[in-house]
Parts: sequence; structure tokens; C-alpha cells
Amino acid sequence: MARIIQEHIAAHNEKFQRQVHQDYEALGWQLTRRGVDIDKVREQVAAFGVAIPSWGVGTGGTRFARFPGSGEPRHVFDKIEDCGVIQQLARATPTVSLHIPWDKCSDWSELRQAAAAQGLSFDAMNSNTFSDAKGQALSYKFGSLSHTDAATRAQAVEHNIECIEIGKKIGSKALTVWVGDGSNFPGQSHFRRAFDRYLDSSRQIYAALPGDWRMFLEHKIAEPAFYSTVIQDWGSSYLAATALGPQAQCLVDLGHHAPNVNIEMIVARLIAAGKLAGFHFNDSKYGDDDLDAGSVSPYRLFLVFNELVAAAHENVQGFQPAYMLDQSHNVTDPIESLMTSAAQVLRTYAQALLVDRAALDAAQEANDAMTASQLLKTAFQTDVTPLLQRVRQDAGGAVDPVACYRASGYRQQAAQERPAVQGGGGGIV
Amino acid sequence: MARIIQEHIAAHNEKFQRQVHQDYEALGWQLTRRGVDIDKVREQVAAFGVAIPSWGVGTGGTRFARFPGSGEPRHVFDKIEDCGVIQQLARATPTVSLHIPWDKCSDWSELRQAAAAQGLSFDAMNSNTFSDAKGQALSYKFGSLSHTDAATRAQAVEHNIECIEIGKKIGSKALTVWVGDGSNFPGQSHFRRAFDRYLDSSRQIYAALPGDWRMFLEHKIAEPAFYSTVIQDWGSSYLAATALGPQAQCLVDLGHHAPNVNIEMIVARLIAAGKLAGFHFNDSKYGDDDLDAGSVSPYRLFLVFNELVAAAHENVQGFQPAYMLDQSHNVTDPIESLMTSAAQVLRTYAQALLVDRAALDAAQEANDAMTASQLLKTAFQTDVTPLLQRVRQDAGGAVDPVACYRASGYRQQAAQERPAVQGGGGGIV
Amino acid sequence: MARIIQEHIAAHNEKFQRQVHQDYEALGWQLTRRGVDIDKVREQVAAFGVAIPSWGVGTGGTRFARFPGSGEPRHVFDKIEDCGVIQQLARATPTVSLHIPWDKCSDWSELRQAAAAQGLSFDAMNSNTFSDAKGQALSYKFGSLSHTDAATRAQAVEHNIECIEIGKKIGSKALTVWVGDGSNFPGQSHFRRAFDRYLDSSRQIYAALPGDWRMFLEHKIAEPAFYSTVIQDWGSSYLAATALGPQAQCLVDLGHHAPNVNIEMIVARLIAAGKLAGFHFNDSKYGDDDLDAGSVSPYRLFLVFNELVAAAHENVQGFQPAYMLDQSHNVTDPIESLMTSAAQVLRTYAQALLVDRAALDAAQEANDAMTASQLLKTAFQTDVTPLLQRVRQDAGGAVDPVACYRASGYRQQAAQERPAVQGGGGGIV
Amino acid sequence: MARIIQEHIAAHNEKFQRQVHQDYEALGWQLTRRGVDIDKVREQVAAFGVAIPSWGVGTGGTRFARFPGSGEPRHVFDKIEDCGVIQQLARATPTVSLHIPWDKCSDWSELRQAAAAQGLSFDAMNSNTFSDAKGQALSYKFGSLSHTDAATRAQAVEHNIECIEIGKKIGSKALTVWVGDGSNFPGQSHFRRAFDRYLDSSRQIYAALPGDWRMFLEHKIAEPAFYSTVIQDWGSSYLAATALGPQAQCLVDLGHHAPNVNIEMIVARLIAAGKLAGFHFNDSKYGDDDLDAGSVSPYRLFLVFNELVAAAHENVQGFQPAYMLDQSHNVTDPIESLMTSAAQVLRTYAQALLVDRAALDAAQEANDAMTASQLLKTAFQTDVTPLLQRVRQDAGGAVDPVACYRASGYRQQAAQERPAVQGGGGGIV
Repeated sequence: MARIIQEHIAAHNEKFQRQVHQDYEALGWQLTRRGVDIDKVREQVAAFGVAIPSWGVGTGGTRFARFPGSGEPRHVFDKIEDCGVIQQLARATPTVSLHIPWDKCSDWSELRQAAAAQGLSFDAMNSNTFSDAKGQALSYKFGSLSHTDAATRAQAVEHNIECIEIGKKIGSKALTVWVGDGSNFPGQSHFRRAFDRYLDSSRQIYAALPGDWRMFLEHKIAEPAFYSTVIQDWGSSYLAATALGPQAQCLVDLGHHAPNVNIEMIVARLIAAGKLAGFHFNDSKYGDDDLDAGSVSPYRLFLVFNELVAAAHENVQGFQPAYMLDQSHNVTDPIESLMTSAAQVLRTYAQALLVDRAALDAAQEANDAMTASQLLKTAFQTDVTPLLQRVRQDAGGAVDPVACYRASGYRQQAAQERPAVQGGGGGIV
Repeated sequence: MARIIQEHIAAHNEKFQRQVHQDYEALGWQLTRRGVDIDKVREQVAAFGVAIPSWGVGTGGTRFARFPGSGEPRHVFDKIEDCGVIQQLARATPTVSLHIPWDKCSDWSELRQAAAAQGLSFDAMNSNTFSDAKGQALSYKFGSLSHTDAATRAQAVEHNIECIEIGKKIGSKALTVWVGDGSNFPGQSHFRRAFDRYLDSSRQIYAALPGDWRMFLEHKIAEPAFYSTVIQDWGSSYLAATALGPQAQCLVDLGHHAPNVNIEMIVARLIAAGKLAGFHFNDSKYGDDDLDAGSVSPYRLFLVFNELVAAAHENVQGFQPAYMLDQSHNVTDPIESLMTSAAQVLRTYAQALLVDRAALDAAQEANDAMTASQLLKTAFQTDVTPLLQRVRQDAGGAVDPVACYRASGYRQQAAQERPAVQGGGGGIV
Repeated sequence: MARIIQEHIAAHNEKFQRQVHQDYEALGWQLTRRGVDIDKVREQVAAFGVAIPSWGVGTGGTRFARFPGSGEPRHVFDKIEDCGVIQQLARATPTVSLHIPWDKCSDWSELRQAAAAQGLSFDAMNSNTFSDAKGQALSYKFGSLSHTDAATRAQAVEHNIECIEIGKKIGSKALTVWVGDGSNFPGQSHFRRAFDRYLDSSRQIYAALPGDWRMFLEHKIAEPAFYSTVIQDWGSSYLAATALGPQAQCLVDLGHHAPNVNIEMIVARLIAAGKLAGFHFNDSKYGDDDLDAGSVSPYRLFLVFNELVAAAHENVQGFQPAYMLDQSHNVTDPIESLMTSAAQVLRTYAQALLVDRAALDAAQEANDAMTASQLLKTAFQTDVTPLLQRVRQDAGGAVDPVACYRASGYRQQAAQERPAVQGGGGGIV
Repeated sequence: MARIIQEHIAAHNEKFQRQVHQDYEALGWQLTRRGVDIDKVREQVAAFGVAIPSWGVGTGGTRFARFPGSGEPRHVFDKIEDCGVIQQLARATPTVSLHIPWDKCSDWSELRQAAAAQGLSFDAMNSNTFSDAKGQALSYKFGSLSHTDAATRAQAVEHNIECIEIGKKIGSKALTVWVGDGSNFPGQSHFRRAFDRYLDSSRQIYAALPGDWRMFLEHKIAEPAFYSTVIQDWGSSYLAATALGPQAQCLVDLGHHAPNVNIEMIVARLIAAGKLAGFHFNDSKYGDDDLDAGSVSPYRLFLVFNELVAAAHENVQGFQPAYMLDQSHNVTDPIESLMTSAAQVLRTYAQALLVDRAALDAAQEANDAMTASQLLKTAFQTDVTPLLQRVRQDAGGAVDPVACYRASGYRQQAAQERPAVQGGGGGIV
């Protein structure tokens, strides 16, 4: 299937040219007044990228139902195609994160080339020991890395090592490990022993890690296990990452916390401890809802980015987080959601860059809560839309990615070229 | 497939005979001292029944995976067989609640006879407009009873009326309506219009209700929709039930509330308003976890039953709740979970019957919080196990249903007689 | 004490004149492009007012401590003075809501004149039966309107009627009733009887209501009672308001809900039912935190205003909500917090006015969740700061109220003129 | 004031003698059948003690109001008197935990003797830097150990060292540090710097710790700060305790967590890490409600004790937790609540001792969730009342402490001897 032709994008942008120019200039004046160089911010934003999870281009679902969209990708090559369109239009997602076994293919070199042809490379590898693959010898019904049965643990370890091997072939530099291990009943699991078994297994995976790789441990309060999970919060994640070694760090998925938890503070703690692996961005209202990033609580996302920009500003040692979207697109076209979410992430990053850090430091030092609060608000309230439009335009993307995409007929074409498959969708980490 | 032979149960009970007798007597003495006639309590408990949802005998799952058990029921007749065993051993679940279209069959009269042969009859009918049935004309991806499209709403109405028609044939007297309708994004749905459409559709279903039927409206805070749901809490459920008429009432599923919500108080409000339809029993730690009833918070279940027993004690007008288990058995044998949960419900009911209501009234009137609290605790702390054992024994059930079931080899036999089917499981309401 | 002299404000504004003009114009162009007339929006915003609770100008506290600020108001006349300054600078709070007995004075006519001199009038009256006033005959330790003791209930009823009487003298048109009644132990309170007693008492208050008054019922999930409260949620509030009659409506305090609850949906339900009394604005992260409105979750506030503007847009019958700030200022100068929060409320209202309702209707009808979501986001992301500055400037207020206030030396003067009193602060509803 | 005379207790017990004997025997038979030696369990329970916080004998309150009881203690000697009665009747609370400056007195040796006369000794010391003491030089309004101002931090450090000094005089061996430090607004506090300052200050306190003392760090998600707190969860507590050294450990207050959090799992993690300091027992439904231990969720308390008993059973190295009640008695007589809560703690400990650990190990190893779950339930459902009665009786306490206390007239006598003081109550940690 052909990509969207670049002429289509150019024609789309043509219509906005004057508007973007004017708005960008007006924003520039405003920022100059605040002592901010808009072009410098623009360059930082242009350099920012967030990975797309390969499974994100398929329609998601819930335990109740999945309502597939049309033209869904049938295999990893289709997924790369969709990721290519996202990157082509929104210019914010230069990398893709694979999921094994969902993305297995017979020729990894071919895949790498297909990605490169779309201007894409590969981010962290994701293993899957929360469901049973077809033909798998031992079941993960009662756990994987922490299973009471040694053979099952060994199988799970081996699978993770296989993910590393695949990752080496496609240029990945990290392995993300999320396990569904846990329990549904008080008493079902011996908490301390299960954690020890998890550590034992993880150490074997860690040992197989190339020297320039990182291992990302992802915690989650619940689901699929509903009474306890082995890595239930950042505290357990930190214990495990510390036990494993310097290449192991803690991944923060915004939807994996208890209600009301202050996530930006967890981010700050992990930054200070040198253990922040990075993020799975999404939004949530009730639990691990996997809604589009910033769609429900954009200020919360901003407060996370405020910590990230502050850490970079202060040159915190070892600070090098990885960024990925991790959403379940149940009612939208996944391509539209991913482009919009990536833009939301960039918007939030840009806003966080606008915070007057010197003034904030002073207000914090003086316990002037009102001023400090308003300094963040001023940055957040700034409408950086023209800046984002410029970033996309400059890179050859579309001023309005969704409008441009809809006008392109890409989805309709995909629907024709990709006959629907039964049960083709996967779960959502 | 044959039921468990009654001789197997008799032999099982034989071993416990002396112990049950002794323990029952000891408990009787204790209760006598507290002014309670144990035999009267036993009779009340013996008369109590809780329905089994037909889908409960299959292994449940999450959006991440489903790990099937062995010998899973392939169709409604298999399910009835499993329900028969549950009732045979635990003697607490004389009714089954069907789910359409999952339980559709070609001969409802045959089904009714099959159930009767197991000593079972049918409870409320459950419709399904939260997933698309095979060959369905219009999709419920964006809602059913509240869909913006009139034709889709009509289809959903028609399906519910079909459920009533089936229910008439098998002796049901109620229709439970739970819809997944809602939204995943702020702005996606017009709250007031969606609610009005829901009411319009529901009125058509209500109109098709026989005069001696009830319509149960089930609310839920979230899932599958993750930003808003049309009937999100008991307040909206009450508004709808009131708009519909006296045959419409509000069903309380213990897992469908926001964190920290005082469910027993909601129960009290609905009782006072004459709008309590009944319950879907289960337990939860994080959300709609559908864990086994009372497995995580048995005292919360007790506090609900305390309201129920108080209402009966005070002869509140129109108080006639329906009881059903609604659980997802992901890591246990569903038959074991359902027997155990039914026993837990009976245990809790028995404990609530032990509350000294006159003393409680007096303590409440005097604002003696300590005494009032301890009166509930005294009832809850009473170990009514021998009473439950007697109830089962007297009715021909097993003293220890799980042990008796395991010894019977029923599951192994089922595994042989029921070859595994792909995707045979259904969702969990 | 003198008000801030208008010349001080004029001099302050002088510095911003060109900037405000430019920014307003730029925003105007942008809005014109979106089909919005900025002047029309400005007029609507200028006509919007939110009441200040008299207790809000004092420093708040927690059960652990209260750290008083300097120059705190000693009595209702001082409070009116502070409210006058807030209105003078921020021009968004033309009314004050009194709290009895905290604001009792010997000459209500004098108070009314003092307020009028500051351009202020009086909003809803607030009764207090959650704490014992000095010399009070019967204690509210175990409840007030729902107390088991008839005499205590009568005392609470009488107090509320006294509030109405005072309100009549100062031009109020509403009584807000919030009770702390509830329980701390399971069993302590008989839920149904307590609710009935509450209704009985409330009916007596309702009967004393002048024909052009409204009675606002305020629900709260918990605190000061920590196991149950009598009016725990909007469902109970609705039941009570309906039982009382058309003049009774349900007040929504943004911090009085269970975690994760979708408040804007509750607002929609109450609007549709003709029972929305109005709001107590504040923000919260963990519970009834009484943080400054929009300081933690500005988008949530926007989503509430989106419902309000939609209702006005659609001419929903009987839609006439009252607006009040209700915050606890523990670490800021209350005057600064109230000005900033009022501005935040106006900002949010302005943003909600920018939503393209026709396009939103169309997107909702078409189930185009992405477009609908982005239409709200576009409105929310608009930086309406220059519009707010113009509204204040036009009305004689300050472009930057906090900066102008700080430069005025008002607080320092207050500190000199108002010697600190012991325990002068009150609780926070 | 005289203690309750021992003859009063003896006469009280006399009435129960036969009943206790019978019930104990019946329970003994039942336990024997389960392979449990009731006398051995009784001895373990008899050896278990939980500390009373000195402030617990005063009536608690909320930010809205405090409704004092009669005969409230006026100073630490009165408090010791009340604690003496609690211990005399309930025989479960041999130690008292002081709070400075609330409990300051002029002669610590006299206090120690007064306590010894009641059979009491002293548990952990509690410092207070969450409120300003009278005459204190610098305010804690914006923090204490983490304050931006070095002098304020130094003052807070000094206060904690003073607490250690006092503790030495009265035989204490631990210092509990809970700070209210945090922020109410996003931006107000620099998370990483505040944490570093906290560590710096804490190191100075730690340095002053005698070699046989421990330092307990208490975390709390929120309140009094409502946006962020410095030690917000066990993860931060662990980081701090590890940074300080082996004498620093993490204290778990059951009410200081986010909603839904699995507390028993946190307990397991801290046990495994050798960092579990101990507990502040209470119960909660909505937040830090400080309700009576086990009054709302007795099974949750059991699950915590299940971890504790398992750790002891497995001889986990360094496992030596401290136990204290920490409740706010707003509607009950504090003496009654403390006796009842201590009994509840003992009841729960006894139940946890009844868990068949070998069978549980086997079920966990076999992933037999149903059996594992039921093994815990069987222990929890056991009515150990007669065992607790025997423990009290054997030690000279009352079979029914509350009834015996009420009959003694102690409170009435206290009301006469202790004239009410204004504002004598303190906050509740």
C-alpha cells in the first residue's frame, strides 16, 4: 500500500500557510515579552519523539467486547505502514515498539528495512507472559516470572531472552518487562516468595542484556490479577530494579496507579534515584483506562513534564527517559488517536519548556505558593498550537494531521487492501 | 453426563455426622444464651436462595487473556448440568439466570425440563447489547439503547423484548438490563440527550413487560466505557426506574461503584424508596473485579445483609429483592467458586439474622455508637459454620461441598465428555 | 480601613495598556477565524459573578493545625472590607455569602450598607449545625437535623429559620443547608430513620422559606462523619430535594464526591431534572481538600462549565445555578487566592463559551469521538487571558489583580489595624 | 483519682465464670480437631501488647468541630491514669506512647513512677513539627524538616532530639517521626530538593539516636498538605530509611494510603527488606479517618496480621515490629474505644495464629487458590472470643471490659475531678 503522497500534505499545508505564520509570530511576540525565545523552544520540541507501540494501531477492546474498525493491520508489516503514516503526518513518532509474539515475522532484516523506508526505527522490545501463545508448552494462568513452577519460570525467562535477541536484530536498545503475575484471592500467593522468584527470573534476563541495553520494569496496581500483583507500585519496582543492577530501571505507565496518587511526585523520586526508565503515556479516569494521552486530565500530564523539564534543566545525572504512547483505541481510528496523542505530548512538553524556572525557584524558596502555582499555570495556559504547527510543517508533516489524513482516503484504501481477520487484535499493556 | 450420585454425598456426610451434631449443639447453646433460637435461624437460612448466572460456570477472563479450565460447558445444557451439581452439593442456588444470545437454544421447553430434572428453575433474563452478536445488522460500538441512531436503538429494544419472550417460555419473571453505553472522551456524548434516548428505548421495553414481571436496571460507574456511562450510579438508575414505572427497579452490583462508596447506604436508600431490585453479588478490591463474594471484604457483605434483614424485620413495604451471584472465575474451578460463594452469602445472611435488633434500636436511639458497633460485630463474629452444614445436610447436600465435589471426579469426567471449544467463553457482566 | 485607592489601580493598568490591547486584538482575530465574536464573549464574561463565602477571607486550617496569616479579619465588617478589595481588583465577585453564627452582628442594616459601599450584595445564607456555638443548649455531637432527639432537631430547625430571617434583612434569596450528620461506626445510625428525620426537619425549614427563596441541599460523601453521612451523594440529595418541593435544589461542591466520580455528569443529571442549585467551587486531589478552584485539575472545571454553557445554549427550563467559591486558604493570602480563583472561574467560563456547539452536536450525532474531543480541547487550549484582562480593566479592576494588590500594601495595613485574635478562624464547609 | 478497684473486676468476672469455661472448652475441642493447641495460642496472645498513644485518651475532632466528652484528661498524668484503667481492664496495652510537646511535664521521673504504678511503661516517642507550639520561634506553616529555611529546619531537628532526650529518661527506645511537610499547590514545592532537605535534617536526628534505639518514619499520602507530601508513600519512606541507616525503619499507619491500595502487600515488602518499623492501627473507609481498628474492615486487619504471623513463623531476620493504636475517638468514650480496639487487635492476632501454615504453603505451591483462600477464611471465621476472655481473666482483667468499665462509674468520677479545659485536645497523627 502506498503512503500518503507528499503532495497531498503540501496542498493541505498550503491553505494554512498564512495563518500559521501570523499565529506563530503573535505567539513569538508574547513569548519574547516573557523572555522566551520561541525558536529555541521550537527546536527542542522538534527534537522530541515518542514511540508508538505496534499494537496501538489496531483497535483495542475490553473484556466485554472488541468492535473492530475497518482496514485493521493484519501483521507487523501492516502495522509499520500505519506507523509510517502517523510519522509522516504528525512528525512526532520516529520509533516503533514491538511486542513479541504478536509481531513475530520470518525476516527481521526485511522488517527493519520496511521500517527504515518509512523513516522509522525501533524502540524498546515488549515481551508477553500475560497470555498463552498458541502452542506454548506451559500456561501462564498462575504466573510467569514468579510462577511456583520452575519450568514455567524458565519458559518465561527464555521468552524474554528471545525478545532481546530479536531486538538486537532490529536495533532496539531496551526490553520492557510487564508481567500479569499476581493473585485473585487473599492467601493465593505468598507475597515474599513470589517476589523472590520474580527477582530470580529477572536476574537471568538481566544477565542476557547487552551492555548498552536497559531493562524497563513496569509496575501496575491491578489487572489482570485483582487482589495482588507482584510489582504493584513504584516501591516494588524500585526494589527490583535496585536488586537487578544499574541497567534496570522503573517504567511509569500513567494509568497503573491507585486512585488519587500523585504521579509527578513518583516521577521526581525515580529521577532523583536515577531509576526512571521512561513512560507509557495515556490517560485515565477510573483505572487503567488507556485513554488518549491528556484527553481527560491534560494538566496532570503537564505536571509530569514539568518534572522532566526541570530535571533536564538541572542536569540531573543519568536522566534519560524513554517515551512511548500506550493507549487502547476502542472508539476512534487508531491512526487519528496516535497522531493526536503524540501532538498532545509535544504540546505538553512545549508548555513545560515555557515555565520560568528562575522565577519558580525563587517562589519555591520564598514559599510563595501563589506565585509558584501561577508560574506553572501561565506556561500551561499558553496556546502553543502555532509552534506545533510550525514544527510539523518544517519537518514535512501536516499542519492539521487528522484533517489531512481524513482527506487522504488512507483508511478506505486500507479497508480494501486488508480483508478483516477474525480475532486479529491483541491485548493492551 | 450423570450427576454426582447421591450415595457419594451420603458417604461424605457420614464422616462429619458427629462433628456437625456437636458443633451445632454448642452453637445452639451459645445462641440460646443470646436469646436466639438456632432452629428458627436455620429455617430462614434454608429458605434462602441465590441465583447462578449461566455464564458463571465458564472460566472468566480479562481483556489481556482468558485461561480456560478443563471440561468447560459448551452450551446451555452443559451449563445447566454444572448448575445442577452446584445446587446438589451446596443447596443454596435453586435458580439459574440466562443470558441471551449466549444461552440460545432451539427448544426452550426441553431446556426447562432439563433444568427441572436438576431441581432448577429460572431467574431473571439478561440481555446483551454490549457486544455484537454474530450476524447482527447494526453494531453497538457506539451504544445500544442510547445510540444516536434510531435503527440501532430499535434493534436493541427488539433484542430485549426477545429476551422477555424467551423468559416467558421458561418461567422467568424479570429482565435485567445492563448496557455498556457511554463514552471514552469528554465531548463524545451529549449526556442529557443520551439519557433521554435511553429512557425512550427503555419505555418501549417496559411496555412489553408482562404485568407480573419486573425490570432491573443495573448501573455501573465505568467499563467498557471509560469516561462516562449512561447509567453511572444509583442516582441515575433511580431517575430512570422512576421515569419507567413501578415495575422498574434498581439492581445493585457490589463492584459497580466508585472507590470508598458506602454501598449499604445506597441499599438503604433504595429500600426506602421502594426501588431495590436486588443484587449481583461479588467482591472487589480495585474496581469491577468480579471476585468471589465476600472473599476480600466479608464485613462489607455483612453490612449489606444487615440492611436487608433490618428491612424484612421492619416489614418495609414492597421489599422483595432478587439475589444473584455475578463473578468472574479466572483462577478457580467455577463450580467450586460458585458453591463457596453461595455458602458465603448464606453465612452472611445467617450472621445478619443474629443481630439483636431491639438492642441495636436502643443503642442507635441513645447514640451509643460503641454498643451499636459491637452488636453488629457480635453477630458477624459468630461462627455459623455448623448451622450452614446442617442446612446443607438436611436438604441432601454435602457438609463440605468442595471436598465432596473434588472427590467425585465430576470435573475429570466433564473434561472427557466435553472437548474444548475455541472462544467458548463469554464476557462477565 | 481605606480601600485600595482607585488611582493605584489606574497606575497599575497604565503599564499594561498597550499589551492588553495588542493581545486582545490578536485573540480577536483568531476567534473571528473560528466564527466567534470576541466582544460578545467578553460581555457574557463581564456579566458573570461568583460569590465569596465570608469565611473564605480568613486563613483556613486542618484538624492538625491552623497557621494564621497576618491582618486576619476579626468580624464580619472586616470580612466585608476584604471582600470589597477582592471585588475592586478582580471584578468577578459582586456578592458575599454569610455564615451564621460566625457572621452575626448587632445591626444588619449597617452591614448591608457597609457592603453596598463596597459594591457588594449578599448571596445565599449558610447555617451551621456541624459545630456547637457558644452557649448552645443542645449539642450537635450526634447530629442536628437528623438527630434522634426531637429537641435537638427542633433547635437545628430553629437555627436555620433564624438564618432565613437574617437573610431577609440583607437581601439574600437562598439558604444553603449542609449538615455534618452521619456516623463513624457501622451500626451507629439507622440509615432509613435518620434520613426520614432529616426530611421531617427540612420540611419545617422549607415551610419557613419565602416564596422567592430557594433552599440548597449540599451533599458530601464523608467528613466530619467517617462511616456514613445522611446526604452522602447527589442521589440522596435529589431524593430530599424532590420530597421537599420545587424551591429545594441540589448544590454541588466539587470536592464532596467519591474518588474518580464524573462530576460533570452529575451536573448534567441535575440540570435535566431541574434540580441544580449551583456550585461550591474548589479543587481537590485526595478528598474535600478545598484547594483553589482549577489549581489541580483545570480541565475538570472546564468540563463542568461545558455542561453549564450547553444548558444555557439549549435554554433548558429552570436552569439558574448559583455560583460560590468554597476554599480553604491554608498557605496563601486568602485575598490573593480568592481573586485568582474567581479569575480562574471566569477563564473557564470564557473557554466554555468558545466551544463550537453546532460542530459538537454534529460530531456527537455522528459518533465522531475524535472530533468531539478536539472541539472541547480547542476551546480549552485557547488562552483567554487578554479577554479577562479587558473585562477587569473595563470594569475598573486591575489587569493583574495579585500584583496590584501586593503593591498596594493592603495586607500590611490590615496587619497593623487588626490585632491578631486567638482562635478567630472558623471551619470550612 | 483511684483506679477501678480490683474487687469490682472480680465481681464482674464472677458472673461469667461458667460461661467462659464452657465456651473455652468448646473452642478448644474444635481447635484440637484442627490440630491446634488452644493453650499455646492463648499464651502467645497473652504475650502480645499494643501501645496506647497518650493523645488517644482525649476526644478527637475534625477541622469542623471537636465535641469534647466529660472528664477529659487535663495533662499527661491524667492520661496515664486513663491508660492505667484501659490496661487494668483489657490487659492488652502495657505501654504508652508520648507526644511532645503535648505531654511535657516538669518531672519525668515522677511520670515514670506514676506509669509504673499503673503497670505501664513507655513506647516510642512522638515529635510534633506539624503545628506551632506556643512561643515557638519559627513557624512550621511551610514545613519543618524539609523547610526551605535552614533555621526552621534546625529548630525542627532540635525538637526531635529533645524528644529523644526525654525518651531516654522514661525508658523509650524509639522515635516516631511524622511530618506534615508538603504542598497545597502544584509548583509550590520542589519535590527533589524538599526530599533532600528532609534527608539532611533526618540525618542529624539519626545521629543523635542512641545505639539501641530505632527511628520510625511514618508516611502519609495527604493531609495536612493536600497536593503533595514529602514522605507520601512506603516507597519514599523506604528510600529515606535506607539513606539513614539500619536503625531507621518504615512505620505503617493503616489509614495513610491511597484508596484501594493493598496494605498487606506493603507490609510484606517491608518485612522482606528488613525495614518494617511497626504499625499505627486504626480503620478507615474514606481516608485517614482514624476509626477504631477493625471497625470497618476487620478482614483487612486480619490479612495484615497474616503477614506478621507468617514472618514470625518463617523466622524472617530482623522482624520486630512495634504496635500502637492511633485513632480519633470523636463519638465514643476514648477509654471504651481503646479497650475495644486493643481487644480487636488481639482477636485478629489470635485468628492469624490459627491459619494452617503447612496447608497454606501447599495450596500456594499448587496454585490452589480456592483452598488457600478458604484456609485464611477458616481462621478468620473462628470465634476466638472465649480465648480472649480467658487471656484477660487470667491476667486480672475483665471478661467484658466495656461493661465492667461502665459499671465502675470511672468516667463520672473523672468528670467531677477534672474540670473541663478549653481547647485541651490535640490533633491526631
